[in-house]
Amino acid sequence: MSNPIISRRGDSIQESPIRKLAPLAADAIKKGISIHHLNIGQPDIPTPVEFWDAVKSNISNVLAYGPSIGIPELREAICGYYSRSDISIEPDQVMITTGGSEAVIFSMMAVCDPGDEIICFEPFYTNYNGFATLADVKLVPITSRSENGFHLPPSEEITSRITEKTRAILICNPNNPTGTILTDAEISDLADIVTSNNIYLLADEVYRDFAFDGREHSSILEFPGIADRAVVMDSISKRFSSCGARLGNIITRNSSLMSVFVKFGQARLCPPTLSQYGAAAMYRSMTADYFSSVVSMYQNRRDILMHELHGQEGIFFLKPEGAFYATIRIPVENSDDFTAWMLTDFSIDGWTTMIAPAEGFYATPGMGLDEIRIAYVLNENRMRSALEILKSGLQEYRASR
Amino acid sequence: MSNPIISRRGDSIQESPIRKLAPLAADAIKKGISIHHLNIGQPDIPTPVEFWDAVKSNISNVLAYGPSIGIPELREAICGYYSRSDISIEPDQVMITTGGSEAVIFSMMAVCDPGDEIICFEPFYTNYNGFATLADVKLVPITSRSENGFHLPPSEEITSRITEKTRAILICNPNNPTGTILTDAEISDLADIVTSNNIYLLADEVYRDFAFDGREHSSILEFPGIADRAVVMDSISKRFSSCGARLGNIITRNSSLMSVFVKFGQARLCPPTLSQYGAAAMYRSMTADYFSSVVSMYQNRRDILMHELHGQEGIFFLKPEGAFYATIRIPVENSDDFTAWMLTDFSIDGWTTMIAPAEGFYATPGMGLDEIRIAYVLNENRMRSALEILKSGLQEYRASR
Repeated sequence: MSNPIISRRGDSIQESPIRKLAPLAADAIKKGISIHHLNIGQPDIPTPVEFWDAVKSNISNVLAYGPSIGIPELREAICGYYSRSDISIEPDQVMITTGGSEAVIFSMMAVCDPGDEIICFEPFYTNYNGFATLADVKLVPITSRSENGFHLPPSEEITSRITEKTRAILICNPNNPTGTILTDAEISDLADIVTSNNIYLLADEVYRDFAFDGREHSSILEFPGIADRAVVMDSISKRFSSCGARLGNIITRNSSLMSVFVKFGQARLCPPTLSQYGAAAMYRSMTADYFSSVVSMYQNRRDILMHELHGQEGIFFLKPEGAFYATIRIPVENSDDFTAWMLTDFSIDGWTTMIAPAEGFYATPGMGLDEIRIAYVLNENRMRSALEILKSGLQEYRASR
Repeated sequence: MSNPIISRRGDSIQESPIRKLAPLAADAIKKGISIHHLNIGQPDIPTPVEFWDAVKSNISNVLAYGPSIGIPELREAICGYYSRSDISIEPDQVMITTGGSEAVIFSMMAVCDPGDEIICFEPFYTNYNGFATLADVKLVPITSRSENGFHLPPSEEITSRITEKTRAILICNPNNPTGTILTDAEISDLADIVTSNNIYLLADEVYRDFAFDGREHSSILEFPGIADRAVVMDSISKRFSSCGARLGNIITRNSSLMSVFVKFGQARLCPPTLSQYGAAAMYRSMTADYFSSVVSMYQNRRDILMHELHGQEGIFFLKPEGAFYATIRIPVENSDDFTAWMLTDFSIDGWTTMIAPAEGFYATPGMGLDEIRIAYVLNENRMRSALEILKSGLQEYRASR
C-alpha cells in the first residue's frame, strides 16, 4: 500500500532559499574550498560577555520551565531598552517568544484564520512564506522596486489590494532583504490605511538599531493612533549577535490580543530559560556606545559594498539605509543558477563567495530572478575579498554563458 | 472605531488548565502560603551535571545559528540511546525540535490541513488542544475509562470514528495524564488500523523511560509494518529533567515526511544551540543506572500516592503503570472549583497543595469534572505532606458544600 498523504501545507512549504544551497556549500568544502558567507544573516560580531556571564551564574540544580509569557526580568529590561527611544511600554505588553520566528507565526495566527490574507511588500524576508504556509494564510505581495530604493508604492496601490479577507499589513523595517528604512510619512500612511480598513499593522523591527548615515528608525509603537492595531515582532538574534539563543518577543498595547498570545504561548509552555537570563543581562547592560559601535561597523561594511559593487556594469542598487542587507540586480538571467555555479565551479586561491538568490524573497512567480541578496555580516577585509571574488565570478560566469 | 478582529483560532484557544490557576497560586503565596506543586510536570530531579558542563565548555565567541535539523552530535547521540533498546534509527531520521511541543505541532501540520481530523484518546495531554487549534485540526476524542486503567477501547470503537478527513491516530505512551502504558497487543491493533485506513500513527513517547513494576515500554518504532506511518514525538524535558532547555525531537523513517519536517524547521531557523550541546552530552553519558535510579524514584512516589489515596472513600484510580501522573476520580462535582478552593481557602501549617483539574484534559464537554490529575514530581516527604493536605482539604471542602 502507498504511504499516507502529506498535507497540502507540507507539500507546498517553501524550501529556504537561504539554506537550500547548503548541500552545494558542503560539497565545496569537501573539495577544499573555503566560503565567504554573504548568504545568511549570521553576524560575526561577538555575543556580549554579559550573555555568557548570566548563563554561567544561572547554572542551577534544575533547569525548570519558566513563565509562558517570559521571565519578568527580561520583559522589564526590554521596556528599559525602549525607554531610551522615549517609547513607553509596560512589561505586560511584552511577551517573550522562541526567536523572532515564533513572534511572526503567533502574530499571523492571532489575526488570521486559514484562508485570510496579509498584505506584504516584496521582496520580503523569505521565511514569511514558510510561516504563512504553516498558518495557512495567504500573503498578498505588493512589489517594491529597486529604482526608488524599495520604498513603499503609493497608498492607492496598497488599498487596491485590500479585500474582505485582509486582516493585516506586514512590514519589515528596517528591511530584510533590502536595507530600506521607512520614513515617518510612509508609516503614517500605513497607519491611516490600517485604521480606515480596521486591520492590523504587523511590524518586524528586528533590525531597528541598525540605521545608517544618522537616520533614526521609527517604530510603529510611536504612532499613538494605532496603539490597538500595532504588533511589533522582535528578536535578540541580530541586536546582540545571539542567533543561537532563539529568543524574540512580541509587543502590543492591545490587551485582548496579548491575552491570545499568552494562551498560544501556554500551549508551547515557555521559551528557553537560560537564554532569557542572558538576554536580560544584555538588555540591562548594553549602552548607547555599544549600539553606536555596532552600527558604525555595519555602516563601514555597507560602504565597502557600495565601493566594490555600486555603479559596476549591469549592477544596480541604491545605498542601503539600514539593517545589514542589500538586494542587488545583477546581469544574469537566473541568479539561482549563478549562485550555485559560484559554489560548484568557481574559486580564487581556494575561496569562493556564497550569496542568496533573490527569487525566494518574492511571492510573485518570476520576480527576483536577476537579483541577489547580500548580507554584509563579515569583517571589512573579508567583505573586500568576498566581493572581489563575487565580481570575478560574475565576469567569468557571463563569459561562459 | 472598534478594534480589528481576533482570529477564530485566537478566540477559541484553550487557556492551559495547568497554568490558568497560576494567578490564584500567586495570591496564595502573597498571603504567605507555601504550595506543594502536584499540578505541573516539573520534576524536582537535578538536571545532570553533564548538561551544565557541556554548556560551559561551549561558551564561544558567537552564539550562532545551528542546522535546522539539529546538530549532528545530538542526532547521533539519540540514535545511540535508542540502540540500547535495540531500536535501530539513523541520524537523518531524527530532527531536533524546540521542545516536544514543536514536535507535536509540526507532526499535526505535516499530516493535516485545516479541517482535517486526528483521533485521540481522552483524557489526553491538554496542550494537544492548543496545538490543534493553532494547526486548525479537529481532534476527535475517544473516551478511555478509569475502570480499565485508561487502556484503549475496542478496535471497533476506534474504526467507527474514522472518516474521510481522518489523517492520523495520536497516542501518548506512557500516558500523560493517566500513567497508562499500552500493551504490545494494543499497539499492534493500532498498527493494523492505521495501515488498513492508510493514515499515520503519531506517538508522544516523552515518558518512555518511566515504566514501573518491571514493565517494558514498546515504541511504535518497533513495529516494522508501520515504518512509513510512524512518527515519534519526544523531548528531553522529563527524561533528563531539563524542561527549560526546550529541546525535543521527531523521529520517522518516512523520508518524504522527514523532508517536510526539515522544511518546516528551516522556516524557524533552528532549535536553541546551547541546549543541544547539553542534551548531546547527557544522551552520550547517561547509563542504564541513571535511568533505573530515576525510575525507582518515580515508582516510590507512585507507591506513596497509592498508599495515601487508593481505596479512600469516593476516590477511584487503578495503579499507574508509568510516566509520573495519575488521573483520579474524587468525590466532588466540579474539580475546577475544588482546585481553586485549595488555593484560596485551605492550608495546613501554612501549606496547601495545587493539583490540575481534569476537565481540560478532555475534549468532550462535561467530561473530567469529577477528576484531577496529580503529577508525582516531588520527593517522598513532600509527596506525603502534599497528599495529607489534599485529603484533609477534600474532607473540609465536602463538609462545606
